[in-house]
Amino acid sequence: MDDHPVGTSRHLSRRSLMTTGVLAAGAVGVTASTVGVPFNGSPAQAVAGITKKVTIYAEQMPGGLFGYGLAPGQATVPGPVLEIYEGDTLEITLVNTTTQRLSIHPHGVDYSTDSDGSPLNASFNNPGETRTYVWRSREMFLASGRRFMPGSAGYWHYHDHAMGTDHGTAGVAKGLYGALIVRRRGDILPEKQFTVVFNDMMINNRMAPDTPMFEANLGQRVEWLAIGHGGTFHTFHLHAHRWADNRTGMLEGPADPSLVIDNKDLNPGSSFGFQVLAGEGVGPGAWMYHCHVQSHSDGGMAGIFLVRNADGSMPPGAEEAIHRFQGHTHTHGS
Amino acid sequence: MDDHPVGTSRHLSRRSLMTTGVLAAGAVGVTASTVGVPFNGSPAQAVAGITKKVTIYAEQMPGGLFGYGLAPGQATVPGPVLEIYEGDTLEITLVNTTTQRLSIHPHGVDYSTDSDGSPLNASFNNPGETRTYVWRSREMFLASGRRFMPGSAGYWHYHDHAMGTDHGTAGVAKGLYGALIVRRRGDILPEKQFTVVFNDMMINNRMAPDTPMFEANLGQRVEWLAIGHGGTFHTFHLHAHRWADNRTGMLEGPADPSLVIDNKDLNPGSSFGFQVLAGEGVGPGAWMYHCHVQSHSDGGMAGIFLVRNADGSMPPGAEEAIHRFQGHTHTHGS
Amino acid sequence: MDDHPVGTSRHLSRRSLMTTGVLAAGAVGVTASTVGVPFNGSPAQAVAGITKKVTIYAEQMPGGLFGYGLAPGQATVPGPVLEIYEGDTLEITLVNTTTQRLSIHPHGVDYSTDSDGSPLNASFNNPGETRTYVWRSREMFLASGRRFMPGSAGYWHYHDHAMGTDHGTAGVAKGLYGALIVRRRGDILPEKQFTVVFNDMMINNRMAPDTPMFEANLGQRVEWLAIGHGGTFHTFHLHAHRWADNRTGMLEGPADPSLVIDNKDLNPGSSFGFQVLAGEGVGPGAWMYHCHVQSHSDGGMAGIFLVRNADGSMPPGAEEAIHRFQGHTHTHGS
Repeated sequence: MDDHPVGTSRHLSRRSLMTTGVLAAGAVGVTASTVGVPFNGSPAQAVAGITKKVTIYAEQMPGGLFGYGLAPGQATVPGPVLEIYEGDTLEITLVNTTTQRLSIHPHGVDYSTDSDGSPLNASFNNPGETRTYVWRSREMFLASGRRFMPGSAGYWHYHDHAMGTDHGTAGVAKGLYGALIVRRRGDILPEKQFTVVFNDMMINNRMAPDTPMFEANLGQRVEWLAIGHGGTFHTFHLHAHRWADNRTGMLEGPADPSLVIDNKDLNPGSSFGFQVLAGEGVGPGAWMYHCHVQSHSDGGMAGIFLVRNADGSMPPGAEEAIHRFQGHTHTHGS
Repeated sequence: MDDHPVGTSRHLSRRSLMTTGVLAAGAVGVTASTVGVPFNGSPAQAVAGITKKVTIYAEQMPGGLFGYGLAPGQATVPGPVLEIYEGDTLEITLVNTTTQRLSIHPHGVDYSTDSDGSPLNASFNNPGETRTYVWRSREMFLASGRRFMPGSAGYWHYHDHAMGTDHGTAGVAKGLYGALIVRRRGDILPEKQFTVVFNDMMINNRMAPDTPMFEANLGQRVEWLAIGHGGTFHTFHLHAHRWADNRTGMLEGPADPSLVIDNKDLNPGSSFGFQVLAGEGVGPGAWMYHCHVQSHSDGGMAGIFLVRNADGSMPPGAEEAIHRFQGHTHTHGS
Repeated sequence: MDDHPVGTSRHLSRRSLMTTGVLAAGAVGVTASTVGVPFNGSPAQAVAGITKKVTIYAEQMPGGLFGYGLAPGQATVPGPVLEIYEGDTLEITLVNTTTQRLSIHPHGVDYSTDSDGSPLNASFNNPGETRTYVWRSREMFLASGRRFMPGSAGYWHYHDHAMGTDHGTAGVAKGLYGALIVRRRGDILPEKQFTVVFNDMMINNRMAPDTPMFEANLGQRVEWLAIGHGGTFHTFHLHAHRWADNRTGMLEGPADPSLVIDNKDLNPGSSFGFQVLAGEGVGPGAWMYHCHVQSHSDGGMAGIFLVRNADGSMPPGAEEAIHRFQGHTHTHGS
């Protein structure tokens, strides 16, 4: 049913990462903690986890797109989901198979200036060049009194910072971006992951009805990874599902004061993630996700979250809804 | 003093909802909890509250506006405030008295695809048609470990999703929107409620000096319901009052880490609410609320929060301030 | 190295405030609390702290700028950082040395209508006029049950509300703004402070490569004060450092659900603050801060956070990075 491989790069990335050991290693129960370790200014201080090595290929794709992939010829937009646990290190060998200057720049993790991914720090790949970037992570550690300097855990992202301008504007515009997750040990793992990037007036560099259709079975734990890019403001809205506006999207209990939302600003450089149980309390069906800026949703920033029956079969009405979605120009009412 | 009935729809809505039993039923001390109930995929699982039935009339109004109302000829912009407690169900019979296709789509609550309010799911009222929409709500329930999937409690909203485009762009632009509150049992109730909708370059589809003047007496507990719509970015600012950027706007205690703010992004599809004690610590007077985007406030996105003396009399200087506000074009300094 | 006095007004402000007793008094261990004090509607109720008097001079500066300063001829853009503790009062004597109507309007604190700083309340300085504004603050106090009405603590700001339009659009555009911090007793104090104001397409009314270069030594506790102004949406991003999206930027412990971020919306009228340990876990170097809206960073909304070695010497590569930054037009890749 899902004929949008660009939007379903998570399948590839999950499988590939399992193969290369990223997820598997990340799941190992390393429990060493840096909490309370005094700061000594050394970049190497906090690493108590595992170092995972992954090779990423930056490639030119059809239609003027550029993508990151875990094997030659396998680049996707967005790129693969990269996952680690706090304390782990990602050592990324970026192979630039293109004729453009480009790089990979992460949010949320620790890196030295030579892994900054920015021309400012001469940290990029020239055309054809291979370069290694090292991203470290850590757990929270005591600042003073009862307060802690935050660890790396979060729903982050990575992107080019060198193509076209010193801020990677051309590379980001053309698809050089992806999700990066740093988990705390004990975090609940999802059964499926969807990456949604609002990039100017497109979703994952596509417009309706060609936007990704994300699929899950009723009750599956689905992780949404939302990333903003480009030069336009957006709000991400998901029908019939909601989440807490905090680190996990879930509540820590009745005293957790977090806002619960189903619509959130998704502006350039920002990212968030959350988990929902597909169709939980609302049933299966074709649920919309879209930018809630009216001219943007009308202009094509909308897609379908297809919640199938628990056994994977199509629920009543869903085929018709998908047909309507694919037939509409999304500029006029019917 | 308040000659802006559009902006004071809460008076109507509160009275009407009391009459129809929505608020009264909502206030009943139902304490059944679904916390810890395992997920079974059934849309009917979580309902431990009361079902309230309300009829809403979508009507064309003077000046090209459209509104929702609780009785024929009583439509307002924004529409009535709808309130329930977690666990309750709202069964809304929407009567479309207009010649346009339209619907009612809620944020934050649970609904099946046939109550989605979207053309995608063939969930709308044709001209002259009456249709029932069912919105359910629930309490948080245990996900795993110590984490909970969030309940429905929040300051939400509802709006058309079918007029003009498949996203209801024309209906929203013309006034088909309102506030929806889902409370947790035990939440503090306000004495007054104000709904403020930033909709493109207008507040409640009005511009200064014709924007709503909200009134309260010194010390009254006032609930602000802020909703964003349209295609423009905004920030909501209230003079001389502040709130916590969390579910209630109040702090759970000294360990509650929430930001305290008096200015917040209010972009399309987002909503938030908070309670203040009118004039608390600052005294009575004519306090401004406005969009803090400078060209927007200059262009008419500003209004007055009139805090009267505790006995309801006018405080010194307030008449003069209102006079200044009503006389100004808001494009030049005096 | 830092040749951008506009961007380093904190040095002046800290020293000056120490001299005038603002910081010194604020640091006195006043522990009186208003928690639980019943509300009585009196503006004077909550003041348990100290009253600090400061004279601020609003001046015209070269290049069409206007600034606030703590002594004649000392105005800066942004103005001085003003700091108090919850419970304290700031009594500001504003001397208008210019030929324009202007005022000073604070966010987050308590003030009567005559200190509102708005033309609406006839609260401004005519050209040449001196006027006193009183800003009060308070601790949280019990609302009902376990909930508290929030206190004044926060990373706030102040700005003109009277030049050009009734919302001070001209004054804000020309530089009449600054940071205001209200701390809770026990909050961790920083070693350095940087004020970053995203004002339309400029940072502190400057564009790259003329934007402020902020400097610290490795491991120093640095407080960032981010303020949004003007009519454009922005996102603030800092390379290689992150913070919790809550009141302090730090976590209260493992149960604190706050998002940890390194990119945040910074829209007109909003402000936030956080502390980082300079270069902590990433090492020294020239780190970028910039608006993450691609056209804005390309257009000049970027600057350098120079983290020197712990002994204050220049780290390898930093000089080269600064040279690259100063030589670039920031509209093309190299």
